[in-house]
Order: sequence, then structure tokens, then C-alpha cells
Amino acid sequence: MLSFLSDYTEGAHPEVLKKLNELNMVSLPGYGEDECCREAKNKIRRFCGRDDLQVQFLTGGTQTNLLAISTMLKRYEAVVAADTGHINVHEAGAIEFSGHKVLTLPSKDGRVSGEDLEEYMERFYGDDTHEHMCFPGMVYISHPTELGTLYSKAQLTKLAEVCRKYEMPLYMDGARLGYGLVSSESDLTIEDIVELCDLFYIGGTKVGTLCGEALIFTKNNMPRGFSTMTKQQGAMLAKGRLVGMQFDALFTDDLYLKISRHAIKCAMELKQAFVEKGYTLYIDSPTNQQFVILSPEQLERLSKIAAFSVWEKIDSQHIAVRFVTSWATREEDLKELISRL
Amino acid sequence: MLSFLSDYTEGAHPEVLKKLNELNMVSLPGYGEDECCREAKNKIRRFCGRDDLQVQFLTGGTQTNLLAISTMLKRYEAVVAADTGHINVHEAGAIEFSGHKVLTLPSKDGRVSGEDLEEYMERFYGDDTHEHMCFPGMVYISHPTELGTLYSKAQLTKLAEVCRKYEMPLYMDGARLGYGLVSSESDLTIEDIVELCDLFYIGGTKVGTLCGEALIFTKNNMPRGFSTMTKQQGAMLAKGRLVGMQFDALFTDDLYLKISRHAIKCAMELKQAFVEKGYTLYIDSPTNQQFVILSPEQLERLSKIAAFSVWEKIDSQHIAVRFVTSWATREEDLKELISRL
Amino acid sequence: MLSFLSDYTEGAHPEVLKKLNELNMVSLPGYGEDECCREAKNKIRRFCGRDDLQVQFLTGGTQTNLLAISTMLKRYEAVVAADTGHINVHEAGAIEFSGHKVLTLPSKDGRVSGEDLEEYMERFYGDDTHEHMCFPGMVYISHPTELGTLYSKAQLTKLAEVCRKYEMPLYMDGARLGYGLVSSESDLTIEDIVELCDLFYIGGTKVGTLCGEALIFTKNNMPRGFSTMTKQQGAMLAKGRLVGMQFDALFTDDLYLKISRHAIKCAMELKQAFVEKGYTLYIDSPTNQQFVILSPEQLERLSKIAAFSVWEKIDSQHIAVRFVTSWATREEDLKELISRL
Amino acid sequence: MLSFLSDYTEGAHPEVLKKLNELNMVSLPGYGEDECCREAKNKIRRFCGRDDLQVQFLTGGTQTNLLAISTMLKRYEAVVAADTGHINVHEAGAIEFSGHKVLTLPSKDGRVSGEDLEEYMERFYGDDTHEHMCFPGMVYISHPTELGTLYSKAQLTKLAEVCRKYEMPLYMDGARLGYGLVSSESDLTIEDIVELCDLFYIGGTKVGTLCGEALIFTKNNMPRGFSTMTKQQGAMLAKGRLVGMQFDALFTDDLYLKISRHAIKCAMELKQAFVEKGYTLYIDSPTNQQFVILSPEQLERLSKIAAFSVWEKIDSQHIAVRFVTSWATREEDLKELISRL
Repeated sequence: MLSFLSDYTEGAHPEVLKKLNELNMVSLPGYGEDECCREAKNKIRRFCGRDDLQVQFLTGGTQTNLLAISTMLKRYEAVVAADTGHINVHEAGAIEFSGHKVLTLPSKDGRVSGEDLEEYMERFYGDDTHEHMCFPGMVYISHPTELGTLYSKAQLTKLAEVCRKYEMPLYMDGARLGYGLVSSESDLTIEDIVELCDLFYIGGTKVGTLCGEALIFTKNNMPRGFSTMTKQQGAMLAKGRLVGMQFDALFTDDLYLKISRHAIKCAMELKQAFVEKGYTLYIDSPTNQQFVILSPEQLERLSKIAAFSVWEKIDSQHIAVRFVTSWATREEDLKELISRL
Repeated sequence: MLSFLSDYTEGAHPEVLKKLNELNMVSLPGYGEDECCREAKNKIRRFCGRDDLQVQFLTGGTQTNLLAISTMLKRYEAVVAADTGHINVHEAGAIEFSGHKVLTLPSKDGRVSGEDLEEYMERFYGDDTHEHMCFPGMVYISHPTELGTLYSKAQLTKLAEVCRKYEMPLYMDGARLGYGLVSSESDLTIEDIVELCDLFYIGGTKVGTLCGEALIFTKNNMPRGFSTMTKQQGAMLAKGRLVGMQFDALFTDDLYLKISRHAIKCAMELKQAFVEKGYTLYIDSPTNQQFVILSPEQLERLSKIAAFSVWEKIDSQHIAVRFVTSWATREEDLKELISRL
Repeated sequence: MLSFLSDYTEGAHPEVLKKLNELNMVSLPGYGEDECCREAKNKIRRFCGRDDLQVQFLTGGTQTNLLAISTMLKRYEAVVAADTGHINVHEAGAIEFSGHKVLTLPSKDGRVSGEDLEEYMERFYGDDTHEHMCFPGMVYISHPTELGTLYSKAQLTKLAEVCRKYEMPLYMDGARLGYGLVSSESDLTIEDIVELCDLFYIGGTKVGTLCGEALIFTKNNMPRGFSTMTKQQGAMLAKGRLVGMQFDALFTDDLYLKISRHAIKCAMELKQAFVEKGYTLYIDSPTNQQFVILSPEQLERLSKIAAFSVWEKIDSQHIAVRFVTSWATREEDLKELISRL
Repeated sequence: MLSFLSDYTEGAHPEVLKKLNELNMVSLPGYGEDECCREAKNKIRRFCGRDDLQVQFLTGGTQTNLLAISTMLKRYEAVVAADTGHINVHEAGAIEFSGHKVLTLPSKDGRVSGEDLEEYMERFYGDDTHEHMCFPGMVYISHPTELGTLYSKAQLTKLAEVCRKYEMPLYMDGARLGYGLVSSESDLTIEDIVELCDLFYIGGTKVGTLCGEALIFTKNNMPRGFSTMTKQQGAMLAKGRLVGMQFDALFTDDLYLKISRHAIKCAMELKQAFVEKGYTLYIDSPTNQQFVILSPEQLERLSKIAAFSVWEKIDSQHIAVRFVTSWATREEDLKELISRL
């Protein structure tokens, strides 16, 4: 079976695993207070071009979103997101479980537009009864989005302006950030993200680690007591080294970008093949998730040779599906799939 | 520096790490739905002597306690624990953050006695105003306790009887369970624990894994929606394989007990050395945590050669300290430490 | 100023206040355990035609919705509501603060249709990833709705069928229930509501009391510990008598229906006057809230003589406004308003 | 039956009820935005000798404690209280349900001593592992305490100093504040309380109203969004006038102190009678709750003529009981009781 189901179906990139092997028997203090975590954080700061960033390692994406959002919001505030946003759909109500509403803006391509946000905010504060409503207190975006799309620098700049006008932190879910950064269709650099977002995370789980995400506060705005709240949430590993070592490897010799480039190269080849063979794209994604519309016959045939996922049943003759490439995609699998399209 | 600070200062047992290396590039489904997790669960069931146990893998101890307790309790119920219990002291209020009070019973040795519990329950239901109070709805114990002590079979049986009388689940925190099972001073088997406890966890983090705990429900009593609640809590790893593979290794060829025995052997040698050299034990622990009372001079001298922790300042001339052995304790370190006592 | 702003701008119906005066110095036990509360509950049971109903008095609508929903839902479940529903818009995120998502169905007239609900449920369980989503676990409706509309018996029956098929309790917010029951356009009786809903509340605050709502469980399904959870939520009055006495008066000699009829008579006269004078209705409401579209000039002129509220700015020339009648509406005010339209 | 069960067994003081009657049909805006609430707040400010106090009306004591504590604490903080404190014992875990631990200091007389608090704080910050613990973030006291005792000015000053040193707000539960202010054994004035406490509440429910408490912030420190959070908690009355009018009456012509004095006069006569007739006091209370030790025979005999409550079974021959006087205590009842002692 050819593997295009998701970007978390294999273990860790070999360089990442090597690090864990090398340092396995070294005795280190717990809870992320070790030299490896410190070193990894410094490498991330260098990657981001800012030596004053506050970095906290966590284990997974939902956990990171949960902690980032619930510790930044005041109790009467809600987070604004696209209705397609991961936090609104596929995190089992984690944000609401933490006590906060997710206010949604309709989105066709996974993005929140600055214009829509501005209109929403004006309407909110224009409503006489808004003291009886959840206050929009933060904006959540993902980059790449759940639909593989990307923000341009202009789009993110506009969003950030609206956020600042209303004093709302802008938070970027970077579960697949690497795949966005190396896309040829993006003009958004990591330095832009650091400047425009108040907090964001660099995803490890989907870009080469066994687990782990790096949550980054860009404005010296990590909430007081964040480490205690991490523990309180059940999100602090006794062996913090597990994540620290993996990120150390990921940010050594540009590994993070190198392996992201591999995934994007594979994804673009796959997209081109789909287009050339007459398939209709469901959305034109510039990143490692490719969405295409299949007929029931095509779905049945391709399901026999490759693992991928059904995204949405459009109607009885059209099914949107998703193929995902990653750092682990094998060239031979890609060739085989293309030849069988 | 000789390492006796804790049982989570090294990485994973080499056999555990080997498993992660071997299966690294195998493509597997996410969220614990893979073959490795299934196999590991079966091995745990065999270890426990019961093929109908419900097992859920989680990443850390606080997370496991939080999920176990908050999903078993009804909203108006509280968990009863020793005042020394980990959930009452060192988990940053995770249980309360989930909405539940920790009701405490005074304890000198880390254990909850069945007699104390019974008296407490009688007093509670004898109070006319108890409808305005938190209902005791579950009992939390640790084995070994935070002070290294163990429950005898008779003690656990009595506790379980009181719990059943009042229809409260009995939950055992087994962060260091292996070290308790192999202690020569314990008559409590894993089969007893399965029979007497309603749920418990087998700790990995402190007994040979990089991360991971196995939460076990013994009475077909895993709450409905448990997997969804795990996601909701930010506690579900996309790469569930990470924990599954480690537990598979841990429960192959009796590795879990073998490496626990090593820790206990080291701990007993250390205790004997302390006694022989005239040190006073703070508590007589039969497991891998050894507590001894030092003078300020002894503390200063030993601090220069070994890492260990200060437990409690008793008075100006007496300081209780803790030395911990583990699967990773090196024989030569132990010898060196003993020779320097 | 003529008072048409809302149905909670005056105190209590004189008969209700009289009861408080009469029994003021009688010494009674606290927390709703008194004879007055018992008697009021019995009168409510007789009104509903069922002597086995479980009744709990609470102080306000948001509080009642919060307790009803948060105690009925399991932790991983969400409540389904119309996007216009009070709990989704004007309760400051109370439901989410209790940990639960509000899943919304688009609605034009304030109602949830059984057909829409059924389609939603089929889509939910048809989604392979639904274990990572909030489970719809309860349905919230209001009757009359926030837009003054009513469910027919057929509509409520269909909704109840879908709820039962999916084992979801059906909950009716009856903040203005009286006004719905006496509307000539409704074929839904209190007996129907008792049969079709799993729980509902009879609102006092908007129908003649100073405060107080009666939450009713129809299937012997009041959650265990409900009284303790009421206390825990800060929702239990020490002087439970305050609500008990008021409901006793409200359900003596049919007062509840009598005063509701007065409000509806006034509302229908007002609606007819609007229509006759050429105003456009925003929605054709059969209950005590009347929605009409004004021009900016009309708005300015009417604002000088009457208190009412702006509902929605449709465009620069059309503003939807709301006039509300109640048990307290004075005939002379109504006449004056009509003459000035 | 003579009524000494509690101070919430009757309705409202006649002057309070009169106000509700007089203004019943006046049309007023909802949610506490009316003239009556404003006027009542001003009267409270005058009573307190400070015109800049922030005042919020709420309905009951548990609700007030819940909102005050949960909105002032940061998420990783806990409230410190005497182990006898109402929030720790009789509020059904409301504080924990809001996510916060109650850290307790042992107390024999219901008070928290500044010295004990200081020692506790020093120990907390002296503990190397305190980042894994709940941070003490606020101090809760009651005045009078649950045992009827009072803080002296010196005691409250010391407490306030420790609180300021550690930047913790000091919060006073004044459910029975009036009874404390008029006690001849207290040197603590309302002005002292305003100066020394960061927030406190003036209780209405136990001192003459049907319901209602006035929560007061003394340092311009009401949390942002407090009104929205009140709604979110289900604690905002649509008819805020209900509480506003009652407090208006209570703080007109010194009514609050007058009716408190009546209760204290009765309580002191009762205490003296107990002492003269040879009863042993359980605690020497200077306020409206009187605690005395009875034999089983005395208990049986007195239970036939008066309602009072059993506080604690000391042993088979000694039972501590509580007699409570209030604004509503009738002179003839008191005489009758004394004559039957």
C-alpha cells in the first residue's frame, strides 16, 4: 500500500532518532530544565532571527492550541477562527472544555481574511448588547491551513493590523509550518511570522519528530506561571529531553527546511500529474496536502493501491479526497502512484 | 556527579529504544489505532493475567491522573487521597483545575488506611449538611507511595472493601509500580491489584521509557467517550505508536520486572550501607526511593559527589534527603557512593 | 415614556407580591426545603397534568440553561441549538464556560427543524473522524423563540423523534412559555410539552415574578446530585421561599395563563395596528414580541414617545425594531402608542 | 417552636419589603442598570466612607464567593482559607469547580492568623518544587467567622501586611458583616475593612433581605469584564432592581446597623443566660451565633421547644449546638427560651 494518508504515519526523521540514541544514557534534569532543551531553544531563536523569543516545548498540536489559547484569553473572551479551523472541528471541543467559545468566520479556503475580521469586530462593538456576549479576544489561524492554503505577506499584515487595532493577540497554528515556509508560492518568511504574530508554534509531529511542538511567544508575552499551567494541564513531560533533543536535531544544519522541501517537491509533482491526467482539483493547494475530486470508480480503483483519505462527499458522482506527502514520502511510492493515476 | 536525583534522569532502556529504531520507518495509522499499540496492550493483559482489561496509553503521570480522576468522578464528587498524595501536592492543582476537590486524609507514611477511610465516610454521611458538601466519589492511592512505602495485600483488601461499600472506584497511581511489584517486602501481586482496584496505571516514564503510562480499567468500566476525552484534554498523540512500541518492548521477555529488580537491588544495598554507617533513616522504604536524615555537614559533603534531593528540613541539624535508584543506576556509581558515605 | 422595551421592566404581578408580603414573617427552613416550595411544585405538577414531575426552582434564565445543559451533557458532548439561540448569542459564553460547545444549525425564524437536525446527525455519524469531534448530546430550543415564533405540535413531535432516535434529551427554554401557551396560533399544549420534552423550564422572570424559573424534568431524569450541583454553581438561594412563594401565587387560580393572555391580547392589537398603518413586519410573530421594520425617520419619531429596542440594522433605510408587551403592559400605553404610529 | 435555627429563616425586614412594594410597578431598565441600583450603591459608598468604591450586586453568598475568588485568581493560583472556612466545607466544591484549589491553614476559632499565613508563604517559596504546586494567590476570611468570632483591628492589619508583601488580595466574606460591626467586642470599623481588604461583601440574605449581597472592590481593582463574567456565571438578574431596592432600604436611616444591633443584643442576653445557668460555652462568640455544649438530656428537652442546630458531636455525653439570633428574633421568643433553659 502506497502511503499518502497523512504526514504522521512514520516515526522520526533518522537524524532526529539518531540524536535520541546518542544522548540516551546521559543523565539530565527533568521537566525541560536540561541543556538539550536550552540548546534547542537557542537554535530555534537563531532560525527565527530573534534571540529574545520565549519558547516552550509541548507534545502535540491540540495540547499546544489548548494551552496557547486558554492561557492568553481572559475568562470572558473567545477565540476567533475560520469555521474550517482545526480547533473548531477536530479537537473534540478542547477549547470549549477550557471554558472558551470559538467564534467562527465563514471561510471557503481555510483562511481568515482581515477584511472579514474587521467587519466582524465593528459589528460586535456596534451591538448594544455586547456586554452579554463573549468578547472576541484572540485570533487563531493555521499556516498552512487545514486546506493546504497559505497566507501571503499582505494578507497576514492586514490581519495583524486588525488584531492590533482591537488589542487581540494573533496566534498561528504551525503544525505544518515547514511545508508552508518552503512553498514557492509563499512570500511569507519566518521573520515575517515572528514580527506579525504574537505567538505561533513550529510543528514537529508532522515534520519529522515522534512528537513535540515548539510554542513561541514573540512579544515577551508568555503568560506568568506558564510552566505551572503546563504542568496543571498534564502537558509537562518529566523527560522534557525527549522533545528538546528532537528539536535540536531538527534545527541543526537546516534539517527542518530540507525535509520540508522534499515533501513539497513530491506534492507539486503529484499535483502536476493530477492536472495533466485531467483530474479536477478540489482546491489548488501549494503545500503538502493535495485535494482532488474523484469519481466513485476512481475512488475505488485508487483505494486499492494507495492509502489516502476521503475529505468530503460532494455528490453521488464527486468525492473530494486528500493525498498527503511528507518528509517520509518515498520517491518510488510517488512514481508508482503517478503511474497508476 | 553520581546520579541519584530521580528515576527519570536518563532516556529509555536500550531495549525500548531499539524497538523505536527498528520500526521507525514503518507506516502506521495514527492516534493509537496501530498494530503496535494493540500488541502492547495484549502483552499488558497477559502480564496482568486478564484478557478483558481496557487499556489506554497516555504520555505522563499528571496527565494520566487527571484523565482517570476527572472522567470517573461525577461533577459533584471529589477524590479522596492522602495529604501527601502527588495529586494533592505536586501536580499544580490539575485535579482542581478539572473541577474537583481533593479531600485529604492525614497520612504519616504516604498510605491511606481503610480504617481512616471508613471513619471518614461514616462522618460524611452522618453530617446533616452533607448535601452542601463535595461527595467523596473515588479513592486515589499510589503504590509505591510518594514516600516509597507499599500496601500489603491485607491493607489493599480493606481499602477496596470500604470503597465497594460506598460505591467509590479505587484508583492506584502506579508511576513506580514495577519497583513495588518486585520488592521483597510486598505480598501484593499484579493479579491482586487487578482484582482490588477499579483502575490503575502502569508507569513507563520512571521505569524505562522516554514517556508513556498505561491506564487500565479492570471492570469494563472505561467511561464512554474516553478516547474523545483524551483528545479533548490534549492528551492524544498523533503518533500513538511512540508509547505503544515502548510498552511492547517493556512487556516482552519480562523486561519491566527485570529492570525494576535492578533498581530495588541497588536501593537495598544503599539502605543497608546507610544503616551500617550509622545514618538514621527518615522512613524505612522497601522500594527505589531511600530517605535518610543528614546533618548539615553531611549534606554539604555528599552534595559535592552525588545528585540527590532535599526532602524536608526537619530542624537546623537534621535534613531529610532522598536518594533514588532506577533501571539506569550504574553499579559503579552505587559502589562509589557507598564508599563515600 | 411608553414602556415596550422588554418583559422584565416592572416588578412582580401584584398577586405575586402579595404572597411575599403575607408570608414574610413566617419562619421556614432554608434552601428550598420549605412548605411553600413544596406546595408550589405541586401546583406546577397539576398545571402540567403529571404528578411525578421533578421540579427545581432557580433564579434566572441563563442560570437555568447553564445548569440544565451542563448537568445533562456528558463531558465530551455538545448541545445543538439554532444559531439564533439565546445560549449561542446572549449568555456571555456560559455554556462554553461550563466546558461544552454549542453546535449550531442555521435558522431563519429561531426554530430548529427536525429535518435539519436529522440531516446533521446523519452527517456527524457518517464522518470517519467523528471521534475527534464534539458529540451532539442534547438539543436546545426556545418556545417562544428569540424571534417570537412558536413550534407546532407536528414540528415538536418530529424534533422529539429525532432526539429519541439518537438518544439526545430535548430541552425547551420556556423563559416566555406562558406567552406561547396562550397564543391562538399555537396547537401545542403544556401536556404535549411535558410528553415531548425531556426537560424544560417555566419562566417566571418574564411572566410576572421578580425572579425565578421552574426547571422541570419529565422522565424521572433529574441528574443525581442535582441539588448539590445547584449549590456548587452558586445558584441555590438560602431563602428558597422567595421563588417558591412567587410560583405558588403564579399557579394559583390560573394566574400564569391569565396574565399571559393580557400580554398576547396587547401584542395582537399592536401587530394589527402596525399592519393597518402600512408598516412592514420583520417577522410575523404570534407572541408578545413584535418585530417591525422602521425607516430612520420613523425610528427617530417613535423613539421620542416609547421605549423599544433596535433589533438589527438591515440597511441605511430599514431598521428592524422590537416592541414587547407583558403582563404589565397598560391599556392606556398601548392605545397611546397605536394612536401615535 | 421558638426559632433559633439560623438567620435566614424569615423573609425580609418590613422596611425592605416596603420598598419593593412601593416601586413595584415603576418601569426600569434591566440587569442592574437602573436608578435604584445606582442609588443603593451610592448609599453603600457613603456607609463605607469612600465614594470611589466599585460595587456589584449579586444574589447569594456562595455565588459571591465564587465570582469574587474565581475572577481575581490567575489560573495557576489557589485561595488560602482557614480549614473551617465556608468555601472549604459548605459550598459543595464551588471554588474547585471553578478550577482553583482551596489551600487550608488549620484554625481553632475560624480565623486565619497573619503569623500562620506568613510562615506558610515562607515555606511555599522556600520549596524548590513550588513551580509544580498551586500558587497561593488570594486570602479568604470571614468576619464574623463561621464560629461567630471576630478579627481585631490588629489581627486584620497583620493579615493585610502579609497579603501585601506577597501581592495577594485579601478578601472578606461579610455574609454576617452587620452582626460583626455592632458587636461591642470588635474594634474593627467599616472604614478599617475598606482600607485593609482588597475586596469584601456586605451580606444581605442573613441581615434583612430576601436575597442579595453587595460585593465591593476597594482599590479600583474590579476585574475587567466583571459584568460579562457575572452573566456568564448565571449570576446576573434580569430584574437587578430586586437587589438594588433592598439594599437601598437597608442603607437608608442606618437600618442595616439598627437591625444588626437587635440581633446582637438578643445574642448577648442568650449567652449570659447560658453562662448563668451553668452551661459550658463551646466557643465564646461575640456575635449572633452562640455555641454551647449540651448533654443528651438537655438536647432532647430543648429540641422540643426550640429550633437550633447540632454543630458537632464531641462525645457521647457532650454535643455542641448552635443558637442563632437575627434581625427577626422576637423578644418574647428569647424570653421564653431563656426561661426554659
